[in-house]
Amino acid sequence: MVLINGESRAFIEIADRGFQYGDGLFETIEVRNGQAVFLKQHLQRLGLGCQRLRIPVPDAQTLTFEVNGLCRQMQGTQAVLKIIVTRGSGGRGYRQPDTVQPTRVLSLHPYPDYPKNYAEQGIVARFCSSRLGLNPGLAGIKHLNRLEQVMARAEWDDPGIQEGLMLDINGQVIEGTMSNLFYAKNHRLYTAALTHSGVAGVMRGLVMQFAAEQGSPVIEHSFTREELLSADEIFVCNSIIGLWPVRQIENTHFPVGAISQRLQSRLHQFSHDDK
Amino acid sequence: MVLINGESRAFIEIADRGFQYGDGLFETIEVRNGQAVFLKQHLQRLGLGCQRLRIPVPDAQTLTFEVNGLCRQMQGTQAVLKIIVTRGSGGRGYRQPDTVQPTRVLSLHPYPDYPKNYAEQGIVARFCSSRLGLNPGLAGIKHLNRLEQVMARAEWDDPGIQEGLMLDINGQVIEGTMSNLFYAKNHRLYTAALTHSGVAGVMRGLVMQFAAEQGSPVIEHSFTREELLSADEIFVCNSIIGLWPVRQIENTHFPVGAISQRLQSRLHQFSHDDK
Repeated sequence: MVLINGESRAFIEIADRGFQYGDGLFETIEVRNGQAVFLKQHLQRLGLGCQRLRIPVPDAQTLTFEVNGLCRQMQGTQAVLKIIVTRGSGGRGYRQPDTVQPTRVLSLHPYPDYPKNYAEQGIVARFCSSRLGLNPGLAGIKHLNRLEQVMARAEWDDPGIQEGLMLDINGQVIEGTMSNLFYAKNHRLYTAALTHSGVAGVMRGLVMQFAAEQGSPVIEHSFTREELLSADEIFVCNSIIGLWPVRQIENTHFPVGAISQRLQSRLHQFSHDDK
Repeated sequence: MVLINGESRAFIEIADRGFQYGDGLFETIEVRNGQAVFLKQHLQRLGLGCQRLRIPVPDAQTLTFEVNGLCRQMQGTQAVLKIIVTRGSGGRGYRQPDTVQPTRVLSLHPYPDYPKNYAEQGIVARFCSSRLGLNPGLAGIKHLNRLEQVMARAEWDDPGIQEGLMLDINGQVIEGTMSNLFYAKNHRLYTAALTHSGVAGVMRGLVMQFAAEQGSPVIEHSFTREELLSADEIFVCNSIIGLWPVRQIENTHFPVGAISQRLQSRLHQFSHDDK
């Protein structure tokens, strides 16, 4: 099921700047019991991304109406809702048209069949050799320029490995191909500062909020692969998987720790209470 | 006029990875007298780009047949042919499908109405504040992740400025938003080394080839804004504009120099003789 600017269509003009230049943004949202989970947070981030890319922010009421309409059809099934907003068509080359009419695409997808033990017993990760580039101007934004992630995800097809961890070109660990990454060491929780690369995920934001509420605010900093491997516990998160402990990175093993479990249960509670 | 995988259509599936992730490449080609100019060089670069992104290279015979068919319709008019090749549809998230079936999109566009004096008397350029990120893995490739150029081109709308020059995040000058950049100083010709960012243009390649044939090989190196402003002459080039001398960057003026003119006439001769 796909809605393009409110109409049921599955095709987009090739002139759309999303296709021509990756000139747009996206959100990937869990749909549960006919509702978009953390919709408020996703629309907020989408709005901030639009502002940074100077794309007119889609009307929140229209978007919410369309999202709710689509999600209602998914009553009883878990699903994934993807929202793409582009700068629309037109302009000359890279130059945008004088009046930008954004394109919004909403599409529903099957929920991935991840085994339940990923969340309970943890996953196996590897380091990717594809690196994240550095660009403060675009860092943090969930934009449509995703070749780096595509190249990294193409590095392995072993189904025993669930995520690839990406370093930036300076060798600092940033995130997973599809997730943000946290680690705990000596009872403190750390994640990468996304000043030069990376995507500031909605789930990352919630984890940081919960950790602060629990009295241990997350420290955003730069860290190497060696620092990560010396962690007491590690987890990755995104809006679809929630929070997965990492039990193994290449040959190093990690326990499913108390901090990960506490955040996981807070997340579970919050997403059921208070969307 | 648009051909998608050989069929006359103007719409693309939203599932296409070109739209979802900018997972593809493009070429922009001048069409003159019903023929694609420098087609051999463009198809060669497209093939190299596909190899670097591990997208199956489109069959050259099919592509050439389609290009020639479209261009024949443009007999008597100058036009622009754009070729986009994407990794096609499918896969799960960033992961590509087991069997990739690339999408190829050929489209014809009006030739831009640039005044003739841009080539003869030179253009005015400015420095953009949007920077090019650093990523050796993607540097040089004409891929579809073009947000940096879009953001840079959105910085000005003064019609008296024809090009914006982009620095990388370290402050090295790299290229124009839509062109490559060369400068001459003390009878030597320089351009940016595209090891960490930038697009290795077909016209850039030809300029380097011609300069070498004329006995003054181009030096690829890193240079700052100050070094550029101390140049004897400057020009930008791409496949549509050919070669434009730069007569002014912000408040600094430059002559239309002998090296630029010699390369311009070699280019003119070559493109008429020996496509």
